Amino acid sequence: MALRRALRLAVAVGRRGCCSQHPLPPILLQALRAVAGDPNVSVSAAVRQQHGHDESMHRCAPPDAVVWPRDVEQLQEMVALCHQHRVPMLPYGTGTGLEGGVNAVQGGVCFNLSHMAAISELSVEDFSVAVEPGVTRKALNAYLRGTGLWFPVDPGADASLCGMAATGASGTNAVRYGTMRPNVLNLRVVLPDGSVLHTAGPGRSARKSAAGYDLTSLFVGSEGTLGFLTQATLRLHPLPEAVVAAACTFPSVRDAVSCTVQAWGGNGTWMGRSMALGWGWERDSLSSIPSCLLPAELLDEVMAGACSRYSHLDLPEAAMLFLELHGSQRGLAEQQQQAEELVQLHSGSVLAWAWAPEERERLWTARHNAWFAALALRPGCQGYSTDVCVPISRLPNVVLETQRDLQDSGLTGPMVGHVGDGNFHCILVFHADDPAEAQRVHDFAERLGRWGCGSRRVQGSGDGPTGDGHIPVPRRALAAGGTCTGEHGVGLGKRALLREELGAVGLAAMRRIKDALDPLHLMNPGKVL
Amino acid sequence: MALRRALRLAVAVGRRGCCSQHPLPPILLQALRAVAGDPNVSVSAAVRQQHGHDESMHRCAPPDAVVWPRDVEQLQEMVALCHQHRVPMLPYGTGTGLEGGVNAVQGGVCFNLSHMAAISELSVEDFSVAVEPGVTRKALNAYLRGTGLWFPVDPGADASLCGMAATGASGTNAVRYGTMRPNVLNLRVVLPDGSVLHTAGPGRSARKSAAGYDLTSLFVGSEGTLGFLTQATLRLHPLPEAVVAAACTFPSVRDAVSCTVQAWGGNGTWMGRSMALGWGWERDSLSSIPSCLLPAELLDEVMAGACSRYSHLDLPEAAMLFLELHGSQRGLAEQQQQAEELVQLHSGSVLAWAWAPEERERLWTARHNAWFAALALRPGCQGYSTDVCVPISRLPNVVLETQRDLQDSGLTGPMVGHVGDGNFHCILVFHADDPAEAQRVHDFAERLGRWGCGSRRVQGSGDGPTGDGHIPVPRRALAAGGTCTGEHGVGLGKRALLREELGAVGLAAMRRIKDALDPLHLMNPGKVL
Repeated sequence: MALRRALRLAVAVGRRGCCSQHPLPPILLQALRAVAGDPNVSVSAAVRQQHGHDESMHRCAPPDAVVWPRDVEQLQEMVALCHQHRVPMLPYGTGTGLEGGVNAVQGGVCFNLSHMAAISELSVEDFSVAVEPGVTRKALNAYLRGTGLWFPVDPGADASLCGMAATGASGTNAVRYGTMRPNVLNLRVVLPDGSVLHTAGPGRSARKSAAGYDLTSLFVGSEGTLGFLTQATLRLHPLPEAVVAAACTFPSVRDAVSCTVQAWGGNGTWMGRSMALGWGWERDSLSSIPSCLLPAELLDEVMAGACSRYSHLDLPEAAMLFLELHGSQRGLAEQQQQAEELVQLHSGSVLAWAWAPEERERLWTARHNAWFAALALRPGCQGYSTDVCVPISRLPNVVLETQRDLQDSGLTGPMVGHVGDGNFHCILVFHADDPAEAQRVHDFAERLGRWGCGSRRVQGSGDGPTGDGHIPVPRRALAAGGTCTGEHGVGLGKRALLREELGAVGLAAMRRIKDALDPLHLMNPGKVL
Repeated sequence: MALRRALRLAVAVGRRGCCSQHPLPPILLQALRAVAGDPNVSVSAAVRQQHGHDESMHRCAPPDAVVWPRDVEQLQEMVALCHQHRVPMLPYGTGTGLEGGVNAVQGGVCFNLSHMAAISELSVEDFSVAVEPGVTRKALNAYLRGTGLWFPVDPGADASLCGMAATGASGTNAVRYGTMRPNVLNLRVVLPDGSVLHTAGPGRSARKSAAGYDLTSLFVGSEGTLGFLTQATLRLHPLPEAVVAAACTFPSVRDAVSCTVQAWGGNGTWMGRSMALGWGWERDSLSSIPSCLLPAELLDEVMAGACSRYSHLDLPEAAMLFLELHGSQRGLAEQQQQAEELVQLHSGSVLAWAWAPEERERLWTARHNAWFAALALRPGCQGYSTDVCVPISRLPNVVLETQRDLQDSGLTGPMVGHVGDGNFHCILVFHADDPAEAQRVHDFAERLGRWGCGSRRVQGSGDGPTGDGHIPVPRRALAAGGTCTGEHGVGLGKRALLREELGAVGLAAMRRIKDALDPLHLMNPGKVL
């Protein structure tokens, strides 16, 4: 119902359309300009429109003004002003989110944080660095060149690292290196009243702490609803000495997924089961595989074909895993052999090993372009991506049921997944103006876990604060003990499902935390809860 | 000041002495008995006294009654009763905490959770299991025998796993396997009003999630101040195929610590620096070391000698690292060689490799008995353990300054540390009835990071809610960007330092969270904040 409404009726989200005049108190605008200077405060329709959406399908909801603070002190001043005038505030990084996180559904002031771009406190010995919101992951890794370190969390987009912290991003490397959560050591947060909170205490970067409540983890994934993340102290990782990648084909998605599940089990390490299966390898000789295979991505037959065509690779239209092995030159040869045996055990084969950086880059670019490759399957169509994550043991069944469901529904929904995490996406490509197809998409996504994220913006969210009284059908991922969102977040589109996933008490606890830290509900209102 | 007052004046903590009569409303007692049955509700002085303290030096503060709920429903009913009568509630696992976490400083009802001891939802494929508070880590590992899996977090004591979650425990294996935080997937919490919260949603155990605020991490380390942890879904790990341990001696603590820091840098992985140093090894050939060396423990000269005497080992009185390598039989030989080279590079030597389980057990038992070995240095004395944790690059200097300070202060304070984490303890052994020595201990601990935990109970906490207006001197660990508590928690004794570590805004944020989830301040009052 919600999606259909969104697709068909373009229900307005928020209190204003895209081109309304800004209703901010003139005295507030004046005060903001006094703090940041005229050029850093804009109420132009174009600027507001540009800041009223992310990469998702949620309808553009422009803020009333956009400001560019230069530093944390300026940000604090402007936040205090908005707080004083009870005006909603929206943090804006790169606008590459997939859940409508920046859409100003209740208007207010958008804070574009790109001018705050300091990188500081690099400690090569401690593998840590502090970044401001204007620093993207690619910019940080460029900065780190020559240090032997990198920041591996990679959601695809060249997102703001603070934004990645805010949404709890993960991506292709998360099975090996973790999601954002374990990679953030400290956060400097500007709270809705303008005060500055250091989640682990000012200037602290100890590897572990038992000092009070874990505020860092609370703010990671809070999607801008509790405060502005204005600096993140990150955990860095050593660059691997050598890297080789490969695309492996399998007769079916089942074989590819089974290979994944058996390779790293639940937590990224080799499972005792491999011995029980009598594979004839010493377990430890294989234990080096999982730590290297981990950044493996599943592509189903349709997606493999789509990516191959879109990126001009010569890949067959078959279920695939993209693997990447890290190690020494010497060690990789052994790992390659083991990986090949493992793939063969699941009736697959390694197509070719990509050693040269440009070859690997080509493969991973194809993976990163999966979204556009999927859209190219049906030109002129819309797309959106599901984001369920299930316990690893449930993954093969959930994936296969989902594939069957796609077929039965007559839908185009190629599949990609960070399957070592139990997380996969169906990129549904459909005619938004075909009500029957839109309904099938909606029904499918309801059955899988949740409709609606990761698509080009067209229509409004159907899951607005008012709700529609729709009682969701049992969902496959939730029924399997999984979550409606492995990495994209809740944003606008999954609030109803969050209720279902957490239960009333869980949701009430989150609401109480929101009330405690943002009692006036000024921070990114209408999101998550 | 605080410690001195504690040691000298035995300031009363809370509102009653040890043997006061229970002042609970008779109607509440009657109702509790109706729920749990007479034998499961006790107001006997002996039982109350037994439940009024943990392993720390904080003065016994007995609850007014002790109850033993049989299951979560009974617990909920009794919690709701206490809530209705506005009576403080205290969760009790095994009483092995080191920060006075169970002391009933405001009286109330102690909930001994040992009768809730179910182990459920074991999934070998997902590496996960759910445990109730009556399950200790040893009991779980016994249960897991034959599955190829184990739960490695080991704080020394055979603590309740839910209690370990409540205090954010870590210990000797944490560098390799993580602290409790990343090893808890979900928590079933009974909130102060008796409602049940599943932090990741009921029945969920996905490896990652971006669904709303991270309630799981919030409750891990909350020290019983936000609710009762009545079930923890834990992440399990595969047992290593083969294990070998070793004690290595070094000419000085500096050499031992430097070896540690260079071995695994900030995040438990081999550092590029090793190549820069021209050690002539391919980096990756060494990258297998850190994952095995990680559970390494530092003992300074005094502690090594003390442990050797106490546990009848034949260890020299020298700075030592206890190492443990995990891998295949074949792989370990190579690792051993690499470890020996690494140790030699830092002027150390490996004394002997312990292959047999009983040999390793002997070594690690000696480490686990470090507390008693330290106390045996000065029979009749008290002991207490500091718990600072600093960024790894600051560790050598902080350790050396601390050693110098110990010498200059004329104190006995042998040192042990999970140095891969930057976390170390000085076990101070002193005459509590010698005011001059107690003052020196206090001054030393103030300079290091914090006085007062992990000691046999003697006196009351000097850091009561009233405070003493004492302005702390600059502390070494805090000045180095570290924390006052790496793993023991805040409890009663480190509340003043928590303020200093977090700053006013951080503490206020924690208070607001406390107010939000426990508005009547009934859960374990007087702790953490």
